[in-house]
Amino acid sequence: MTAMRERVQICECFARDGLQHEPIALSPADKIALIDAFTRAGFPRIEATSYSHPKHVPAFADASEVLAGIHRGEGVYYKATCPNLRAVERALRDADAGFGANELSLLVSATESHTERNLMTNRAEQWRRVGEMAAIAAGRFRLIGVISMTFGCPFEGAVDAGVVIDDVKRFAALGVTHVALGDTNGHATPSAVRALFRRIEAEVPEVTSIAHFHDSRGAALANCLAALEAGCRFFDSAFGGVGGHPSRISYGDGFTGNAATEDLVHLLECEGFATGLDLDRVMAASRLCEEKLGRELESRVARAGFGLLDARNLQDA
Amino acid sequence: MTAMRERVQICECFARDGLQHEPIALSPADKIALIDAFTRAGFPRIEATSYSHPKHVPAFADASEVLAGIHRGEGVYYKATCPNLRAVERALRDADAGFGANELSLLVSATESHTERNLMTNRAEQWRRVGEMAAIAAGRFRLIGVISMTFGCPFEGAVDAGVVIDDVKRFAALGVTHVALGDTNGHATPSAVRALFRRIEAEVPEVTSIAHFHDSRGAALANCLAALEAGCRFFDSAFGGVGGHPSRISYGDGFTGNAATEDLVHLLECEGFATGLDLDRVMAASRLCEEKLGRELESRVARAGFGLLDARNLQDA
Repeated sequence: MTAMRERVQICECFARDGLQHEPIALSPADKIALIDAFTRAGFPRIEATSYSHPKHVPAFADASEVLAGIHRGEGVYYKATCPNLRAVERALRDADAGFGANELSLLVSATESHTERNLMTNRAEQWRRVGEMAAIAAGRFRLIGVISMTFGCPFEGAVDAGVVIDDVKRFAALGVTHVALGDTNGHATPSAVRALFRRIEAEVPEVTSIAHFHDSRGAALANCLAALEAGCRFFDSAFGGVGGHPSRISYGDGFTGNAATEDLVHLLECEGFATGLDLDRVMAASRLCEEKLGRELESRVARAGFGLLDARNLQDA
Repeated sequence: MTAMRERVQICECFARDGLQHEPIALSPADKIALIDAFTRAGFPRIEATSYSHPKHVPAFADASEVLAGIHRGEGVYYKATCPNLRAVERALRDADAGFGANELSLLVSATESHTERNLMTNRAEQWRRVGEMAAIAAGRFRLIGVISMTFGCPFEGAVDAGVVIDDVKRFAALGVTHVALGDTNGHATPSAVRALFRRIEAEVPEVTSIAHFHDSRGAALANCLAALEAGCRFFDSAFGGVGGHPSRISYGDGFTGNAATEDLVHLLECEGFATGLDLDRVMAASRLCEEKLGRELESRVARAGFGLLDARNLQDA
């Protein structure tokens, strides 16, 4: 029965998007233990770290040490975030040394205001840089384009879907095969999600869309469902729903955690899709995330369990 | 523009489902202030109290006092929960005295195990009682049937949709016009929700279905979206996502709060439906709920605000 279910791929983002703005700094050993737990649970993609400059993002000063220490799963993609050319050069150096990431994400934002605040440049210049980054990374890594503020921006309000489509096309022209549509501050709505994912499928069919939704207004899973309905099979999420910008400070906009992995796994599996994950090990990883951060996180399934899904899996076995 | 949008009706359940198992007992004056805030915000239906026996549910020993004290909005339905015949008799007495509820909910559960634990009887006997209750209430109140454990049960697992359909038909035969499909412990999935709501529409078209979903596994809003897609226009929710059974104790099953009203309002309005609510007064009521319970509750929108919806409403004005 399991073999006949359609596959969906979840990228576990706890170790990067999740930890980036946490007040607690985890040790490299802790991060390695977490990433290894994600690998054991069966995630096909894991956002492992960022090559951001340690001055700007001190949480990932240990990027190389973490990537050198993890136990790699066969066929698993370990992603590192690269905001600029220097980051890609570090990624290449680590890959040459035999322990680097095998997937890099290249970042743009759909709005000028957010580009300025988050990438400290303008969109035209960032696209020029992304072109350089893609050129030196090509053939060495699978490249993931990331578009922030896809569905709205706290500074500029509504975002024209045409701008996003153009960005997806630009990524495609650079040889980027996968593009994450980032709902950075939780402005996405199911209708907008369905429309955009269908439009990308129609206009840029060579690109695989990734749903990257934050739960700022409680709609992250509803939006994942809408993306699923529109044909999306790649999802980003983080254990415990952690992550996102600490926007109460920088964007004045409340909680912005990622979709919670535990709850997304439950939703997708209940909807009849195969995540390929071991549910017991997902729960073990969930507990490890809470243990390392020293607090109860935001996943509901972490509290309530997988419910009938556990029973269903027993019947399948 | 607003006039052309299709109407949806949210029943605010904070004052009953929300408070039933809260450790803090609110005073009648606090409850009246809350219900008045809900009326001012524009809710067309408000679950105000329960006529459960004060020995079993002490939180609503003040049912008559609360109903006597509220300021009624024109055309607003104020609902009281009635688990048994005595409760309906009390509701009739208050109505005769001129201050009662104008909507009563009559309870059944889709499973024997939950009927035994929650209603302390069996399904056959509860249906006999509901028949008596409907008979003496007919013509005096709008009657709402409530079916618990519609999508699954922590004691019995999966629930046969045929049992639920039969229950909806039984309610219809008793003159009950609206039936709430209760996902008491968060086992609903979007596919199951869509299928059931469509089946009721097809097989029992004289009944209006109400989506009553709990967020035990984070899918409450995704399930509301599925119900909306299946044609449902009546939703139950509670400010701050409070409520539900304290199932860590009684059902061993984690958090079971209701869908959070603030987040549901955001979702429905963003999807182009008219809740008829004043967003500023919704936020004011949200703050009042947190103030009265003395803690930050579970709504995301309470933290992040209505976002682009606020801007859109300004443009409409």
